This record gives sequence, structure tokens and C-alpha cells, in this order.
Amino acid sequence: MKRDLEKLISQMTLEEKASLCSGLDFWHTKAIERLGIPSIMVTDGPHGLRKQEEGVDPLGINDSVPATCFPSAVGLASTWNRELIYQVGVALGEECQAENVGVLLGPGANIKRSPLCGRNFEYFSEDPFLSAEIAASHINGVQSQGVGTSLKHFAVNNQEHRRMSIDAIVDERSLREIYLASFEGAVKKAHPWTVMAAYNKVNGSYASENEYLLTDILRDEWGFEGFVVSDWGAVNERVDALNAGLELEMPSSHGLGDRKIVEAVRSGKLSETLLDQAVERLLRVIFQAVDNKKTSASYDKEQHHQLARDVASESMVLLKNEEQILPLKKEGTIAVIGAFAKTPRYQGGGSSHINPTKLDNILVEMETSAGKNATILYAKGYAIEHDEIEEDLISEAKEVASSADKVVLFVGLPDRYESEGYDRKHLQMPVNHVKLIEEVAKVNRNIVVVLSNGAPIEMPWIDKVKGLLEAYLGGQALGGAICDVLFGTVNPSGKIAETFPKQLSDNPSFLNFPGERDKVEYKEGIFVGYRYYDTKKIAPLFPFGFGLSYTSFAYSDLTVSQKELKDTDILTVTVKVKNIGDVAGKEVVQLYVKDLESSVIRPDKELKGFVKVELQPEEEKTVEFHLDKRAFAYFHVEWNDWHVEAGDFEILVGKSSRDIVLKEKVSITSTVLIKQPVHRNTTIGDLLSDPILAPIAQQLLTKMQEGNAALSMPESDGEHSEMMAAMMKYMPLRALVNFSQGAFTEEMLSGLIEQLNHYLVNEFA
Amino acid sequence: MKRDLEKLISQMTLEEKASLCSGLDFWHTKAIERLGIPSIMVTDGPHGLRKQEEGVDPLGINDSVPATCFPSAVGLASTWNRELIYQVGVALGEECQAENVGVLLGPGANIKRSPLCGRNFEYFSEDPFLSAEIAASHINGVQSQGVGTSLKHFAVNNQEHRRMSIDAIVDERSLREIYLASFEGAVKKAHPWTVMAAYNKVNGSYASENEYLLTDILRDEWGFEGFVVSDWGAVNERVDALNAGLELEMPSSHGLGDRKIVEAVRSGKLSETLLDQAVERLLRVIFQAVDNKKTSASYDKEQHHQLARDVASESMVLLKNEEQILPLKKEGTIAVIGAFAKTPRYQGGGSSHINPTKLDNILVEMETSAGKNATILYAKGYAIEHDEIEEDLISEAKEVASSADKVVLFVGLPDRYESEGYDRKHLQMPVNHVKLIEEVAKVNRNIVVVLSNGAPIEMPWIDKVKGLLEAYLGGQALGGAICDVLFGTVNPSGKIAETFPKQLSDNPSFLNFPGERDKVEYKEGIFVGYRYYDTKKIAPLFPFGFGLSYTSFAYSDLTVSQKELKDTDILTVTVKVKNIGDVAGKEVVQLYVKDLESSVIRPDKELKGFVKVELQPEEEKTVEFHLDKRAFAYFHVEWNDWHVEAGDFEILVGKSSRDIVLKEKVSITSTVLIKQPVHRNTTIGDLLSDPILAPIAQQLLTKMQEGNAALSMPESDGEHSEMMAAMMKYMPLRALVNFSQGAFTEEMLSGLIEQLNHYLVNEFA
Repeated sequence: MKRDLEKLISQMTLEEKASLCSGLDFWHTKAIERLGIPSIMVTDGPHGLRKQEEGVDPLGINDSVPATCFPSAVGLASTWNRELIYQVGVALGEECQAENVGVLLGPGANIKRSPLCGRNFEYFSEDPFLSAEIAASHINGVQSQGVGTSLKHFAVNNQEHRRMSIDAIVDERSLREIYLASFEGAVKKAHPWTVMAAYNKVNGSYASENEYLLTDILRDEWGFEGFVVSDWGAVNERVDALNAGLELEMPSSHGLGDRKIVEAVRSGKLSETLLDQAVERLLRVIFQAVDNKKTSASYDKEQHHQLARDVASESMVLLKNEEQILPLKKEGTIAVIGAFAKTPRYQGGGSSHINPTKLDNILVEMETSAGKNATILYAKGYAIEHDEIEEDLISEAKEVASSADKVVLFVGLPDRYESEGYDRKHLQMPVNHVKLIEEVAKVNRNIVVVLSNGAPIEMPWIDKVKGLLEAYLGGQALGGAICDVLFGTVNPSGKIAETFPKQLSDNPSFLNFPGERDKVEYKEGIFVGYRYYDTKKIAPLFPFGFGLSYTSFAYSDLTVSQKELKDTDILTVTVKVKNIGDVAGKEVVQLYVKDLESSVIRPDKELKGFVKVELQPEEEKTVEFHLDKRAFAYFHVEWNDWHVEAGDFEILVGKSSRDIVLKEKVSITSTVLIKQPVHRNTTIGDLLSDPILAPIAQQLLTKMQEGNAALSMPESDGEHSEMMAAMMKYMPLRALVNFSQGAFTEEMLSGLIEQLNHYLVNEFA
Repeated sequence: MKRDLEKLISQMTLEEKASLCSGLDFWHTKAIERLGIPSIMVTDGPHGLRKQEEGVDPLGINDSVPATCFPSAVGLASTWNRELIYQVGVALGEECQAENVGVLLGPGANIKRSPLCGRNFEYFSEDPFLSAEIAASHINGVQSQGVGTSLKHFAVNNQEHRRMSIDAIVDERSLREIYLASFEGAVKKAHPWTVMAAYNKVNGSYASENEYLLTDILRDEWGFEGFVVSDWGAVNERVDALNAGLELEMPSSHGLGDRKIVEAVRSGKLSETLLDQAVERLLRVIFQAVDNKKTSASYDKEQHHQLARDVASESMVLLKNEEQILPLKKEGTIAVIGAFAKTPRYQGGGSSHINPTKLDNILVEMETSAGKNATILYAKGYAIEHDEIEEDLISEAKEVASSADKVVLFVGLPDRYESEGYDRKHLQMPVNHVKLIEEVAKVNRNIVVVLSNGAPIEMPWIDKVKGLLEAYLGGQALGGAICDVLFGTVNPSGKIAETFPKQLSDNPSFLNFPGERDKVEYKEGIFVGYRYYDTKKIAPLFPFGFGLSYTSFAYSDLTVSQKELKDTDILTVTVKVKNIGDVAGKEVVQLYVKDLESSVIRPDKELKGFVKVELQPEEEKTVEFHLDKRAFAYFHVEWNDWHVEAGDFEILVGKSSRDIVLKEKVSITSTVLIKQPVHRNTTIGDLLSDPILAPIAQQLLTKMQEGNAALSMPESDGEHSEMMAAMMKYMPLRALVNFSQGAFTEEMLSGLIEQLNHYLVNEFA
């Protein structure tokens, strides 16, 4: 429906306009009935709907309306499957329509800076490209159903520790290349209806009052056209937030924010034009939700449960499969050990906590899947509620294990270990889980561990087990999904979207996480995740992008459309992938770019493309990538723009960041001309290697030397020659005065600089 | 001789005063004959005298007057022997007197940030405490002879790459705790006559124009009373440098600097009072040199050579001694392999390069030391001049090795690999050296490697050799010293004053060295050397402080004078050390402090004391340490002062940073009271844990809640209880307005803050 918003706004009083800028309560925008402006509901996501019953529990932590619980974001990203995540988004949109929800509060695109962050399970990846791609698919899926999303938490909200007061200090380049890039791709590709401003400060200013983030970058650079909503309670000073570009304060400030806005307009601190613009942005989304509302919408719970199962089985990552212990055969005796088998850990704590429509019991699913030719035994092994080792549970588990052919151990992190609100302090599993593995390994060597956890753990016990399936937080259909993978109904194709370090201290943020008092400095800079491990040559437990399959894939015939290109060209890369095993499977073909030489610090490699491809046995497909300028660029802080430095780059294609199978070199020339003005501290080396100035500088210096022998620098041969060359190279022009014994004068220095700069400005085309 | 400097200065013309502020030539200050102001000579050091013949080679790189070449600084520091270094200083002072040199340009106290720095051999350590202690002993020794020193390169000159233009960006805390601390200890303990300002910029301003460094810190805080001289050619703008606190520009600017000073005084840009002060500082040192001049001084070259040998043997570090292959017996056949045995690498390149009074031939010394019951064979093995593997040299070496009982391989880094002026690019030895080890190891398993190098190398071949002696750059008497150690005449007692990493990328500065263009960011912060390796749990090849002996030492009875102390107390620590082996030896007892819990980021441990003790077999001594506030403090940037945060600390005593033998816990209370004002973003957690405010805050909040039920935060039990507790803890006061459903108003918020701050200021004693 087309509306004249301008006219509508002109009919609103100042108080009415201000009132729209904060919520009615915890979950609704305010209506203005006399003007026909409706209220819409926004509710938590992002991997399921958490719609609070009205009037109950204002913080909304307790039970909500039943909804399908899909795998958490960490699992969604591990699929590396854009189309599948789009389908999840569609399903979420359908459920929102059925529950009369206008905007789903998600997805979260924050980068996993540290594996300790309590909310990592709600985020996608340590890599901004992958994160942005998955977020865009999610958003596009939800919004295809006429329901909005809220891309969150914008920005640099990478820890829960002191999240409402912490100031994240991050240099501009890392901000752009890592932390914002994850949002940028999602905004540009999927146009979320809203973006949620984070709790924390970024470089000294609250994200909710950060004009640089909310207006300069989000709107002016990226073209965002929706409204910005605060994280719940994230508004510090309401007027500053509005001025910075935050339209909606949530939850209600019970009139306080509205009053402050009215006062600020009256006192001239806030322009009414800006308020009108905010109101227009709010109205556009509110009406968009209302106009797209499908009356009497509903969804098929069973179908959504099946989708949740399909996604879960594709999200799980097979990390180890020694002696091909997996897939399990449907025969013999299988011991299922671990309390999680009966009481699954399937989602994380906090605002994303769903009340599922149904919930798999893993043990029951195991029994069903194994069928009547196999015997399933069960032992609890540990208590979920606490960490204490219970010897009787261990004994029972060992007894069961010793009588089994194979053991499937369900362990991981209990709810209290990871949640919104606080971070982990270490990467260990509870001691009763670890002890269980160690003890069971003493009686049976055929162990498969299935992990339920939202983020990496340390695995000192890894050598004791043959099989390892990272099931993450698999959602309500995790049981069926795990069985699908364990018994080979589904060939695993998940790849970890984050590095698993051998020990916490290997993580790049380790020395600076979670910071000091209210300041956390991102001193690792751009070296986040595999960018760090690969550059620092630190062997991870499992590298970024890694995951096993029940089949094998061979790569061949890497081609590039051109070996020499300009930074404005699009490079097409193709590679052939063949399933050389016996079963059908899916492979994630990963493309990384490596800058071979650069005047700025760059990581060893960066992910710039991925394609998930399904192949029958013996089938071969050609996969294609298109790389634009951005794939080779770094963010040039002084120019405030992306820049490709001319030189050689390597296109790396592989199965993980550490398993590069094919590579090809391309040479790129820059279309950007750089004129470096000469000053008294320009070094002789820089001058004589400047592409523009070198010839003229050499000419001028030679002329000077011809006129005065003392200007020829002393040459030393033998053991000092390299030192003399280095001294000259690094010497600033002004030091020639000291080192020429007076032959080179200050006047000659000024003259030289003037001539060179004159040439640069006037004579060089 | 007492002089009235004030009067003298009053007699000087402006031009004369200005003229004193720069050198006459490369190596002398200017005289003013009409006023009886003499010229003094300054020359390079610091481990020997490099006095240039007049008129030859202005840069002074080529041959100089013969002088004793002591081990380079890296070796001096490896002795950990304050008294011995003092003796070296005395000897250097004697040689300066004999050569009519007034100020020796050294020692260098820069921290070894990266093992790549080409000039690391001239610096002492990666640890500021050790570096400062050794520098102080060196300075005290030289100056005891009436000769000045020049503590250099002040400051943050930790690389040669672009050293004249690079801007070192280092945060204040790391600057204070690491980079300046190394100078601070030396200035305070030894009062060098002069300090040399470095080439580079520090945080945006040239070290030579850095008022913060040269005046605020060096003079006002540390009490430095000498003059500051520029590194040669380090003055950018002469007047800015003078204003910042740099008195002497070197070498001569041929009148340019003087003219600028005169003009600046005339135009009012520079106060003549400041110039007078500079002249007074210059005159004080010039006259100090002249007054302390010993006429017809001389020194005993043989005695100094013997001292050089003693120091060298104590500077060498035994890194590996499998199957006690060392000490060598003076029998059988010993193969001496490697060109360094005949053409030793004994010092580094650049301004510290000495023309030695004599030079040991290692091979000859080996023959002498082995005596007539042993047969010494020799093979060259590699060419020093290039890296190419020469198969005939390798074959010859293998032949020699196969007929020997034991092999001593002399390898390391040739001159061109490390020098002032440029940095290394990697940590590898030349391939012809590495290949030699690998090939010889195929024919003889009894290999001792003797390394000649100025900084750490990677050792992929380490498992192929049984013995490893790090001889560093041992000076002119290295041959005798090496033999003393190899044959057991001297029991090795050197300990590495730097970490040897397994691979270059393990180094903390790796990602940020040598920086981008003209900027290098010290993002590793305080985590330099073992502070990084130990905190990050990265296993080094050899840890800081490590070195083997031919005997063993047992530590016992660690005592502390008090287990609870105030930050103003001095803690006395004692420990018993016993020689439990068969031969006499020296042990370096190292004391580290570990802060067990801190609100600021701190390294795993820090060296705060060391004692070198000599023990006969079975002898036991008690070693004593005295720890003051500084031993427990970190630099509090906001307060601009050192601060001890109350809490528990561990006193660790051991044989290296990774071999802690004994420890004891002490509890320290702070005498500094911290009042934290309350504001709207003070978190509830901070308020309720504030030692001053917690009781009153609790009282006020309870009173509010009694008046209004909605102010009681919803409690959630079960799986969300920890999240709710965390939410409350991290919630700023102002968010209570959003989360109380309007019960908590802005007025209540303001009232609460006002009451708390009132209490803080007025009611709390």
C-alpha cells in the first residue's frame, strides 16, 4: 500500500513524533491510533522465535510460545550452505507470520574474536566474508516472507564481560576489514529492515550514540535504509543516540526518552527535521510489516522439524574418523553413554532461548536408527547439573562400554558453561565429562565422541578416541540429525567456521581478553582467527574450514580468466571437483587470496569465496568464483577507502585454511596513482625507488655530486658495504648536511625538495 | 677543579654559546680558546674503543686505533655478573684515558624486541631489569676512571629498518615498564655523564625533539644531570631539539645548527636562559672530562686481553650437553670443523666495530689447550664469504669427522648477516653452515656445535648434535675462552639474556616488525620476550635465563621476611643454594614476581632480582634479595605513577623463566586509596563491590526497593540464574530506568548518584 508518509508526519505533534522513537513495552512499537499508525511486535531470534506471552516476565527469559528451534548460528554457518540457510530464514519468516511478529531480532553477525565469548553460539564465524554471506542468506530468507530482521549487534560487541560499559578499542583497519565487514556484506546483499545497535562503546563512544557507525558508515556508505533499534537497554543519552542515527529505543523508557526528545527539539539541541527523518524511517518499516502481514498464517510444525533436522545434520562437523569408525553399522552392540543422550544440550542461554515445538531424545533416535539388528545400551556417565565426578556413574559407564562393540559418548558443555550475559574463563569441558572419556577409553578403544557445545573446547583426550563429531547446538531435531550422520544416512559436509586452538593461550586475543576494567584493546588487529594462526604458524587443533566426509574429493584444473589484471577487473576462477569415493557427498570448495608482497601488514591468506557442491560418486563439476577489487584490497586508513596495492597475489583453493590443494599466481596493477610529496625527511632510498621521482632525483643528485666531490658518499667495500648501503637507503635528505662535511647545505636541501615537488605537481602528467 | 660556570657563560657571546651545541667535526666538541673552554673527544664503544684516526673516513667505519675488543653486549649480559662487567668498564675507561677520549659512546640499553634487529648484539637483553643492571655496572666501571659514558639509544630504537624515519608507536605502560625501564635503572644507579638521543620517532615525535622523553622523564623524573647528545645525524630541527632538551648535535652541522640557534634566540623562538642552561650542562661534562684526564695514562694490553678472555668464557652459554659430551677430555682425536675456527666471528658490524689489539685463532687455541695427548684435525667446511654449499668442503669435513672421536663444529652467522644499519629477515644460519652440521652428523654422532652469532637463530638441526655452546660474539680472546669452556678449565655459567624461539613467527613482535612504511606499532605491548612466551605458553627452543653447568645446584629454604606487607615495605627474600656436583661452578639465582590476580593485564612473571654466586663442590650459600614497591608495581597510566594493586603475589626463584624451583606467596596491601566517583554508567556490580561505597549503596538500593516492588529485579532460577546475575552485575545504573518498567525514574537515578558521590567526598574519611 502506498502512503504519503510526509503528509502523515506533518499531521503529527512533536510529542507524537517523539513517542514513536521508543517502545510501548518490551516487545512493541507504539501505535498512534488517531493517525492510523499501528503497533508492531518485534521478538528475539535468530534461530527460532522467542515470542513472549503478554504481561509475563518483562525480561522475557522464561518460557515463550512454542517455536521451531533450529541449530544455533554456529551450526548454521558450519553448513557453508547459502541456499539451506535461506530456507531456514523462510521457515522463520513463516513462524513470525503465524505469530504476528513484524521483525525478528537477528541474525547476529559479530565476529568470534575469542572462543571465550559467552554468546559465540549465536554468531557465525571468525571470518567476516563467511559470516556476511550466511547472515545475508538468513536475512533474505526471513524477509522473503514479509517479515523484517534486525542485524545485530552493531558493532564490535565481541564479549559479554561488562558488555554494557566496555569500550572496545579497535584500529580503523581492523574495524573495517574484520568487524564491520561482517555487517557490511549482509547489509549490502540483504538489506535488513532494521539494524540493532550494540551495548558497548566503540573507540570511546557508545555504539548507540556512534554517529560514525550509525550514520556515516551504515547509511551513507553502505546505503542502509531501515531503522536502527537499540539493544535492550543500550541507550545512554536518548538525544545523543537520535542525533547519531538510532531511531528506536527499546524497551520502553516509560516516557523518559520521549520527554528528552521533546525538550531537545524545543531547546534547539535536536533539529525537528532530523526527528522527522527518524519517524519516517520508523513508519516505513512499521507499515512494511503491516502491509506484508499475512492474515491467518500458519506453518507446518512437522515440516519445520524436518527442516531443522536436515539443517542440523548438515551443520555437524566430522572432525576425526580414524580407521573409518564412522559411519556406524546397524549391527552389534553400541553403547550410548552420557546424560546428554537423554537430556540433550541443543541451544544456548539468553535472549535466543527457544521453547521448542518438540525435542528429540537422542537415545530414542539412536535406538530407532540402529534398528532391530543392533543392541543399544545406555549409561548416564555424569550429572548435567554439576561438575563433580561420580564414581558410580563412571563405573556403570565402563561396564556398559566393555560389553559393547562400539561406544558413542555424548559430552560437551552444559547450559551454565555458555550463555548470553557472561563469558567462559577457560576452554575446558567439565571434569566429569573429561574423566568419563578417559575412563571409558581404558575399556574400549572404539569410541566416537559427539560434542554438544556452542564454541571450541580444548581436547586433551583427543588421542583416546577414534571418531569425533562436533554437533554444536543442534536445535530441537539434533537427535535425528546426529543419528543420520552417525549411521551414514547423511554424509557429513559441515566445516568449522572457526579455528579450534590446541590451548586457549594460542588464541590471538588471549593477552587482551576481556580487557582491563572498562577497556578492551583489540591489539591483535586484523589477525583474528585463522588470519592469526596461519600467519603465526601456530598449529591449531582443527583449522578453519576443516571437516571430514565419508567420501573423498579431488580438485584439478584451477584456471584464472587472466593472469594480469587491473584492480578494477573481475577475475573469474574455475576449478574442477570430483567425488572419487563410493558415496554421494557435499564439498565446500574454499578460495583464499594471499598477497605475496605488500608495504602494509597483511595476513597469510583471507577467505574470498566458497561454493558448496553436491556430487555423486565419480561425478565431477566445475566450480566458479568471481573476484572483484575487494577480494584483493585492504582498507587504506589515510584514504578512507579500499585499496589494491599493485603486485602479485596467489589464488589458493583448498579444503580448509591449512589444506590448500591448488594455487595460481596473478599480477594486479593499480589504477590509483600515488604522488608522494618530498620533504626534508624523505629518505634517499624512498626517493630513488619512487616510480615517478626516481629518474629526476637521480639526475639532480648526480649533478650536485659533479659539482662537489664531498657530496659523493664514502664507499666502503668488504664487510661494511651492506651497512653503508643500508645507511644511505634509510638516510633522510636533511642528514646529508651532517654527513657531507658541510658540502651539502641547507639551501641545497631546500632547493632539491622544491624542484622535486615542482616536478611532481606540474610536470608529471 | 671548581669553576664558576655561571660567570663563564656570562662572558660568552650568543654565537659562542650556540657553537658549543654542535660538534667541531665527527668526534670532538668545539673549543672556545679565548675563554679557556677545551674540546673533548667522544668515540664509539661500547665493548671496546673505536677511536678514529684524525682526518680519515669521516663516517669512521674503517680501521681505528687498536683497542681491546671485549665480548659484545649480548655476551656481557649473559654473564649476569655485575662485578665482572664493572671490571670491563674499568678497563674500557683505562683505554679511553690512554687514548685521550673523554666520553665513550655506550652502553646501549635498548630492549631486544625482535631477534631480527641487526644491532641486537650491541644490546643486553629482552628484560629491562637485567639490561639496566648490566648497563649500570658498565657505566659505573667506565666512569670510575674519570671517563664519561653515553647511554644509548634513547629511546625505543629497537630496529635498524628505516631507523632514521621510523615512528615507534608504543603505549605508555609498555614504554614505562619495558622500553624506558631499561634506561631508568641505569640512569638512577649509575648517572651516565651523557645520554644519546636515538634516530627514530617515538609516538610521533623524533626522539631528538622529544621533550617528554628528554626533559620530563629523563631529567625531571629520573634526575639525569649530564647532557644529551644526538645520535650521529639524528637532529631534525636544531631548535626544536634544543628546546626539547638535546644539548649537543653530532656530528658537526657545519655552522647550520649554530646559525639556527642564534636566529631562534634573536627571534624569541628560543629562550636564552634555556640556551645558557644547555651550555652549562655541556661545560660541566667537558670540564669533568678534562679535570679527570690522567696524563700519560696507558694500559696493559696483555692484561686486558686476559680480562677479555675471562669475560668471554663467562659470557658463553652451554645450551645442550647430552651424555655429558662436554667437557672434552684432552685425549683421542678431535675434529675441529668450520672456517670460523681459523677466521673467527668475534664482533658485530657498524659503529661498534673494533680494531683489536690481537686476535685469537680458535684452531691454534684448540691445539694448545688439547695438549700433546690429543690429536686435532681441521676442515674448513664452508666458505665464510658466501652461502653456497661447496661439496668438496663438505666431503673433506665428513672425512675428517669420521676419523675423529669427537667433532667440534664452528658455525654461526657471518658478518653480513647482522650489523648496525639493517635487520635480519629470518633467523636461519647460512645454508652451507646448516648443511655442514647435517652431513657431519651422518658420520659422527659426537658433535659439539660452537655458535658465533649476535642473536638467536633457529636450530632445525638441534637433535643431531650432543653439545651446543652459544659463544655469541666473544671478542678478541674468544678462542682461548671457548677452549677454557670446552675443556673444562672454566665451568660455564652464562645464561641467555634473551629467549631463543623455535621459529621466528613465535616472537611477540612478529606480526608488527618492522612495521608499515614509517610506522611500527608495538602491539604486543608489555609482552616482550619471556613475558610473552611464558604468558602465551609457547615453548621456546631455550628459555630466558637458561644455561647449563658442569655441576648441579640445589635450592632450598626459600624465606620471605614477611608474608603480609604494605606496598611501601621492603621484602627480604633468602634462598639457600648448594653445589651438589663435583666441580666448582657459578650459578645465577633468578627471582621472578608473579601477580596472582590483577584488574590490569600483567605478564605471567617478571624478573625482579638475580644474584650470581660461586660455589665449591658441597658448598652452600644463602642468597638474599630485597624487593621494593617497584618489584610488584605496574605503571598506572592515568595516575602517571607506579602502583601496586593490593592482593597476592608469588615470589618465584629458579634457574630460568621456565625452571622455577621454589615459590612463596605474599599478600600486599596498597597504601593508596582509590575513590571512584559514581556516574550514570557505573555498573551495579562495581558499585556493590566498591570497598568504600558498597555498604551505603546497598542500603540506598534496598530502601528504594522497599518503596516499590517493581524495583526488585526479576529473579530467575534454574538454567538462567547465572545469566540474570551477570546481567545485573554488568548493568549500568541508568539502565534500571528501562528494566524497572518505569518504577525507577531519572530523578531517582540522579538522586542516587548524588548521594553516593556526596558520601565519597564528604563523609568518607
